[in-house]
Amino acid sequence: MHITALAGGVGGARFVRGLRHHLDITGLAGSTVTVVANTGDDITLFGLRVCPDVDTLLYTLGGGVHEGQGWGRAEESHRVQGELAAYGAVPQWFGLGDLDIGTHVVRSQWLGQGASLSEVTARLAARWGLPDKHIRLLPMTDVPVETHVVVDDPEGDGQRAIHFQEWWVRHQAAIPAHRFVVAGLDRATAAPGVLDAIRRADVVLLPPSNPVVSIGIILGVPGVRDALRGTAAPVVGVSPLISGRPVRGHADACLAAIGVEVTAQAVGELYEDFLDGWLVDPVDASTTLRRARVEVFDGPLLMSDVAATARIAAHALDLAAAVPA
Amino acid sequence: MHITALAGGVGGARFVRGLRHHLDITGLAGSTVTVVANTGDDITLFGLRVCPDVDTLLYTLGGGVHEGQGWGRAEESHRVQGELAAYGAVPQWFGLGDLDIGTHVVRSQWLGQGASLSEVTARLAARWGLPDKHIRLLPMTDVPVETHVVVDDPEGDGQRAIHFQEWWVRHQAAIPAHRFVVAGLDRATAAPGVLDAIRRADVVLLPPSNPVVSIGIILGVPGVRDALRGTAAPVVGVSPLISGRPVRGHADACLAAIGVEVTAQAVGELYEDFLDGWLVDPVDASTTLRRARVEVFDGPLLMSDVAATARIAAHALDLAAAVPA
Repeated sequence: MHITALAGGVGGARFVRGLRHHLDITGLAGSTVTVVANTGDDITLFGLRVCPDVDTLLYTLGGGVHEGQGWGRAEESHRVQGELAAYGAVPQWFGLGDLDIGTHVVRSQWLGQGASLSEVTARLAARWGLPDKHIRLLPMTDVPVETHVVVDDPEGDGQRAIHFQEWWVRHQAAIPAHRFVVAGLDRATAAPGVLDAIRRADVVLLPPSNPVVSIGIILGVPGVRDALRGTAAPVVGVSPLISGRPVRGHADACLAAIGVEVTAQAVGELYEDFLDGWLVDPVDASTTLRRARVEVFDGPLLMSDVAATARIAAHALDLAAAVPA
Repeated sequence: MHITALAGGVGGARFVRGLRHHLDITGLAGSTVTVVANTGDDITLFGLRVCPDVDTLLYTLGGGVHEGQGWGRAEESHRVQGELAAYGAVPQWFGLGDLDIGTHVVRSQWLGQGASLSEVTARLAARWGLPDKHIRLLPMTDVPVETHVVVDDPEGDGQRAIHFQEWWVRHQAAIPAHRFVVAGLDRATAAPGVLDAIRRADVVLLPPSNPVVSIGIILGVPGVRDALRGTAAPVVGVSPLISGRPVRGHADACLAAIGVEVTAQAVGELYEDFLDGWLVDPVDASTTLRRARVEVFDGPLLMSDVAATARIAAHALDLAAAVPA
């Protein structure tokens, strides 16, 4: 079975790790998972190219993630960052650990040598044991794409655009977002293998990633949404909302910015042109979609550990097997 | 009194620190020292621009140097480097500490934003308290210049050029060098302030830096040697050799490569078109130069600590006061 999953950072990474665990324990040895990672969060900091979602996927799937945070490296230190601050380098609102900086230095070096982000990601992934017997990781595009957030200008009557990371990390999404502007997305093309992975999949899964700034960005890559509409594979999503609240992150602020209700129902509707199955928490059992089959998970839709996540992934696969594509 | 010193790395930095100490203890508060740093050692590693001599000067003069090594940062760690190795990034023969990497990241960021090496060096120096009441630091040029070493090709009958750092650090200068090729030097121009600092100085000092790959490279910047010949200031040098051996480093291998004897005499002769005074160790008392006055230091010409170095610097200044320019 060939599975393709579109993934953001923490939620996507944990879901895919749980999916891998499910494939392992059920002995589905021949199954592969192509993970298409959001790169709209990418940012150049201190001259280094940082790909937060790709890195969270690498660290989580490679066993190097800081479990408590969900992102970044375990046993991290911040000596380089102390130096950057001492020199007055900006910005100072994005924390970069020493081990994490190693990734960014190598990525920037290889990109600077002319390698594509796909090639660089594959080389970085090798260190983390990827591809392994199940998982391979692709960035959504090799074209630099950056999500910006239009907010009120605190120093004037107008509006201004700030990088998504500044809004998310520095302001904790607490400044109202008027809209998202994804620089470069209109001219982007899907990275090698991405569209094929969707078209030729047996199952496409949408992990409980942020529907606006993670999944939503991947859907905006030219060709991706059409591939999802056209694929013969069932497309099944896992709701990132429980009882109108995101389990983690600021999906509520993101949905508000695009004028969408913060409910499992409304997020499912966002995907309805290609969605075949939608897995929701028991508290959202009233969800109904016109076309997709809604299924209620038999317990809290929480990725509380790898085993619980594997159960969610298993249910999503069962749902995929049960719905017409 | 305005002093200008041409400096390489460890030897130059220690000499200038001793000179500053001398100016402090003698109350020569109005005296300034313009340090012109060799940048021929510069190298791009892992996409980061590394300026070994500039950094050794910054760390030594700013109180951050690893005293035992003479270069690099005190209390250094190597976590980033461990990551670079884990990813298989090359080269692995140049050790970069975490604190040191902070410098290189900031430098690379600022250079990437379009600042000149002079501007970047000034901004880095501010963190180390420079300029202070005595010292200001200038790179010899803002043009990227890199010293390469022509060696026998181990995989063929011919020769090949390797970066100076590869020869110096990886091979410990143990591979015979046929010659040095300084890429970019012919098209370089002296950095802002460098030629004026030589022309308008009251004294020009040559610390006991490597005469070939440190002082020799600075002398090769178009205009520098002419400025030294033309300046009204006395030019006084301190021999980097004692009894035919370099006190530290591989000046012997460098001199051999350019066909110059490894003696205080021969190094003084290298400078004789502009040199007015030459300070040597008592064991080299037989040194005689046609034009420059040779003076024998009253003790070992060793920069064993700051106080000893200050005495050498004081003697060099006395010699400058005693010779005709």
